[in-house]
Amino acid sequence: MPIAEELAKKQKEISIAEFFERNRQILGFDNLTRALITSVKEAVDNSLDACEEAGILPDIIIKIEEAGENEYRIEIEDNGPGIVKKQIPNVFGRLLYGSRFHSLKQSRGQQGIGISAVVLYSQLTTGKPINVISKIGENLPAHSYELLIDTKRNRPHIVKEELMHWDKKSGTKIGFYIKGKYVKNRKQSVYGYLKNTAIVNPHAKIIFIEPDGTKNVFDRVAYELPEQPKEIKPHPYGVEIGTLIKMLKETNAKKMVAFLSKEFSSISPQKAKEVLSLANVDTNISPKEIGIEKAKRIIESFKKIKFISPPTDCLSPIGENLIKRGLRKETSQLSPEFISTNKRMPCIFRGIPFMVETGIVYGGNLPRDERIEILRFANKVPLLYQEGACVITEAIKNMDWRRYGLEQKGGKGIPYGPAIILVHVASVNVPFTSESKEAIAHVEEIEREVKLSLQQCARKMKAHLSKKKKRAKAENKFLLISKILPEIAKKVAATLGKPIPPIDDVITQIMNIVWIDDSVNSNGNLTESRINVTNYRKAIHTFDLYVEIPSKKYLVKAIPEPEKIGENYMKWKVEKIKPSEKREFKFILNTDFDENNIYVDGINPVYVIGAEKWEGE
Amino acid sequence: MPIAEELAKKQKEISIAEFFERNRQILGFDNLTRALITSVKEAVDNSLDACEEAGILPDIIIKIEEAGENEYRIEIEDNGPGIVKKQIPNVFGRLLYGSRFHSLKQSRGQQGIGISAVVLYSQLTTGKPINVISKIGENLPAHSYELLIDTKRNRPHIVKEELMHWDKKSGTKIGFYIKGKYVKNRKQSVYGYLKNTAIVNPHAKIIFIEPDGTKNVFDRVAYELPEQPKEIKPHPYGVEIGTLIKMLKETNAKKMVAFLSKEFSSISPQKAKEVLSLANVDTNISPKEIGIEKAKRIIESFKKIKFISPPTDCLSPIGENLIKRGLRKETSQLSPEFISTNKRMPCIFRGIPFMVETGIVYGGNLPRDERIEILRFANKVPLLYQEGACVITEAIKNMDWRRYGLEQKGGKGIPYGPAIILVHVASVNVPFTSESKEAIAHVEEIEREVKLSLQQCARKMKAHLSKKKKRAKAENKFLLISKILPEIAKKVAATLGKPIPPIDDVITQIMNIVWIDDSVNSNGNLTESRINVTNYRKAIHTFDLYVEIPSKKYLVKAIPEPEKIGENYMKWKVEKIKPSEKREFKFILNTDFDENNIYVDGINPVYVIGAEKWEGE
Repeated sequence: MPIAEELAKKQKEISIAEFFERNRQILGFDNLTRALITSVKEAVDNSLDACEEAGILPDIIIKIEEAGENEYRIEIEDNGPGIVKKQIPNVFGRLLYGSRFHSLKQSRGQQGIGISAVVLYSQLTTGKPINVISKIGENLPAHSYELLIDTKRNRPHIVKEELMHWDKKSGTKIGFYIKGKYVKNRKQSVYGYLKNTAIVNPHAKIIFIEPDGTKNVFDRVAYELPEQPKEIKPHPYGVEIGTLIKMLKETNAKKMVAFLSKEFSSISPQKAKEVLSLANVDTNISPKEIGIEKAKRIIESFKKIKFISPPTDCLSPIGENLIKRGLRKETSQLSPEFISTNKRMPCIFRGIPFMVETGIVYGGNLPRDERIEILRFANKVPLLYQEGACVITEAIKNMDWRRYGLEQKGGKGIPYGPAIILVHVASVNVPFTSESKEAIAHVEEIEREVKLSLQQCARKMKAHLSKKKKRAKAENKFLLISKILPEIAKKVAATLGKPIPPIDDVITQIMNIVWIDDSVNSNGNLTESRINVTNYRKAIHTFDLYVEIPSKKYLVKAIPEPEKIGENYMKWKVEKIKPSEKREFKFILNTDFDENNIYVDGINPVYVIGAEKWEGE
Repeated sequence: MPIAEELAKKQKEISIAEFFERNRQILGFDNLTRALITSVKEAVDNSLDACEEAGILPDIIIKIEEAGENEYRIEIEDNGPGIVKKQIPNVFGRLLYGSRFHSLKQSRGQQGIGISAVVLYSQLTTGKPINVISKIGENLPAHSYELLIDTKRNRPHIVKEELMHWDKKSGTKIGFYIKGKYVKNRKQSVYGYLKNTAIVNPHAKIIFIEPDGTKNVFDRVAYELPEQPKEIKPHPYGVEIGTLIKMLKETNAKKMVAFLSKEFSSISPQKAKEVLSLANVDTNISPKEIGIEKAKRIIESFKKIKFISPPTDCLSPIGENLIKRGLRKETSQLSPEFISTNKRMPCIFRGIPFMVETGIVYGGNLPRDERIEILRFANKVPLLYQEGACVITEAIKNMDWRRYGLEQKGGKGIPYGPAIILVHVASVNVPFTSESKEAIAHVEEIEREVKLSLQQCARKMKAHLSKKKKRAKAENKFLLISKILPEIAKKVAATLGKPIPPIDDVITQIMNIVWIDDSVNSNGNLTESRINVTNYRKAIHTFDLYVEIPSKKYLVKAIPEPEKIGENYMKWKVEKIKPSEKREFKFILNTDFDENNIYVDGINPVYVIGAEKWEGE
């Protein structure tokens, strides 16, 4: 008998549940600490998704209790819409089963694997079933299940089911046992995950009860749900031949114009005709009749025609304001000196929209000798593991940070210095490197966007640093002149037995600058900004002083009255300021505000320290 | 209607093929360059596995041709056992289908995903089917198939099938089109993958024809197949309750003693009784009657009883010799000064045996200012991507390399210096971080073994470096004394108008050491080693000189005749060596040999430079 016949006997189907039972590390269960975090994460992400889909402000309670050596009971309760009875066993007892895979829409869970993976891990390590209680409406009973997974068949095994009363409008509560390890006070911990989740989901209230009984409340700080991302169709840019062939086969459209304009985003019937004409395909032909050659020509035409960008409302960014607030919270003990943020426009890879937002914190008491910290988020979920495998890390490594004032050996690798970098990638389909969803794959388009966004932030950081340096230099000179010069004059006069000469004029002559310094003080929601202008030149000057503001709607008061208030700036006239004269300008905003950007016009900027040349609005 | 009802409509099953169609990056197809390498890799790994299983010395031909813009045709042909007709569509047209998943045995492919993933990617990016030709025996016809995957159902779609003549004993040839990017002369390239594959699989002949027609032949250098790893049962250490419950359900054993001793490795019937008695479980009970509580007690007993290690023959290491040869090949242009290797005993994680082998090359023309290079292998397959996600990298980062003479900021992170580190993890089930099989997950047991093995290598490296340093210091002293002292004597004598005094004795007195230096010269398969002993002391000495050898079976000649030849050393008597006398010892081995380890006995080792104290065999 040929050996192949012998070998063929072993060929058989592998159930996806068996596969993951053997390869749990792919799902994020590679060690006890991570397994516990992953379990909580999968459940909380599901709760947040469900609440948002149902338009409910999320109230989530997480409780972890010790249940033996390296064994914990985890309970997660939400006030979401609940799950209908017949779907409960499938949602929890079957891998690759879910509602979000087949819709092109930004959400945390997309794979239909996460929570059933937790059930799989739970039964593998403790042998015990998961308990699920769910209620879908006010006057309905709740359903309670005890479930295991039949891994050979990848189907739920119902151990017990019953009706019960649950004093709640709607919601889902799950309880399960796992082998795990609970760690406190670490970035990679349940607390760390929940803290960062709360920051970027300010509309959620999250209560977390630790094994030692400590109760942590991450309170709701926003009472509006974020705009629900809209489901979209694929965009023609980057769509592949295999996808197109599949779409052609599955569509209900009878004609190609209808097919293109209905099944794709950003293709109008007009554009559809343009595509078909360029591809030399009859507009009246049925999609079923398009063979591989014609399909190829359509793909080629897609590349040559200009389509509008995908609608931005399919994505739900964190927003620059929240990123700033998050970074400030992360560093509240360290009083950093500078925060900058940036948000890019949506882009496309393989027909799928995505967008990137970033932020950088710098200075203060952040450690100067350590590698910078990286905070990664994907679809508003903090990523805690596999930093080294993530395109975000790769993008950071491949930028030359030395030019922005950070230390970096050979201009490559993760830089060192007092900085934290935050990156958020939002997408209709985040290309994770594995089912554990902890690292984003090396997609060139994403790497490019991360870099571009970080460059924007880094440039602002650099401008801040060089402004600081320039000012420090002038300050040194100023100190030297204004403190030491009089001393020298005194000494010389005493030695020569002559009276001390007047030197104010000399100081002004040596300094020869207009000195502008400023300060920003935050007090709750009010921010006060003060700007001092001192003329250390010999001439009398008249010039315009401009200060950037986030928006004029936040302006509470400005003293003196500005000559002009634009949407993003205020303008004062500094009228005939005499040598050695000092003037003060101040304003109060009822919003977050970190740093003044000050500009001058009508005076040569080389004589000004503390402001740049005004280049117009 | 409750929202849950609305949401339930979208709940549905996700086919594994659809899942990977959307998430190809998980399979290693995240960009064009990697997609091409992954495609070749999956096919070649399959060929190597099949040949080894069938006991055939592999002859593999890989041909890559350009077929359009960023499109290539790839053809891979082997002389393996072939695949029986009815399995061909399943093997190539179905994800999670294979022969190696259900057997606990070291092999390259284990998941039943790899090659069908290539077919999936091929059809997605080019729309074209894969062509498979396979023949299973001399007088049988070959079968040719054209296949696509029906992703909705995860089943093969047969486009065409026919019988054909193929002038070959047996084998499989596949040809397919993909979107990809061909790169030359990089670590991360098809060439790089094949080169490293050839190094650790010296029994394979691999021919690689590049798109520009260049033909690379990696010739067979070993004519014996590596020992076939044996299939084993799980080991009781680390087996989890879920696995045990499943095994209890599936076993054919009627009684518990039989169950334990048949379904586990390293459990004798005697040990089985011990386990059951400790767990307070009746030996005559049927496995089907064991509930969760009893199963738990059995698991607890497993932990308390001492079992023999798993049989080593389930694993197939590369071997220290091949590792050395591989490292030497990798650095042939750079004449490194030192290579050390180490091989650990098999260990267990979660009942699964694994073992670690490592090697370090140091010095020569390796770049001194760059981060060290890491060569990773898993089950004899080179890992080219996701270095940052791999436990091997993590283990290296978490060692303090400064103590071994490499540069490392803060004693953490990847070190810098003129070194290459090679690590091979062999296991019955390598815990990869994703289906792309490029990084090994953070399993503590594996990290520990990698560290222990590298520490052994690094210690040898350090010993080498400090020997070198010590010798350099003595050498400087020697130079100073033997060259400059006579000059000074001459000068002084001339100045004083006196004859030059005899200073040989003075030199000896100042040096006051026995100087041993050596050299190793390789000439093809023969290695000649020379050891010189010079007495720079005032006294006459008699002592024993020991030199380590890999094995006495390699010894060709030794001059003078040693007093004793042990399995791993030779001993000469250095009889009455007079002040200023020099003696030479040499030997020839017919094997690789890098560096002499020299020891002395019968003389105070503080007076000896170039040898350590002999501590016995």
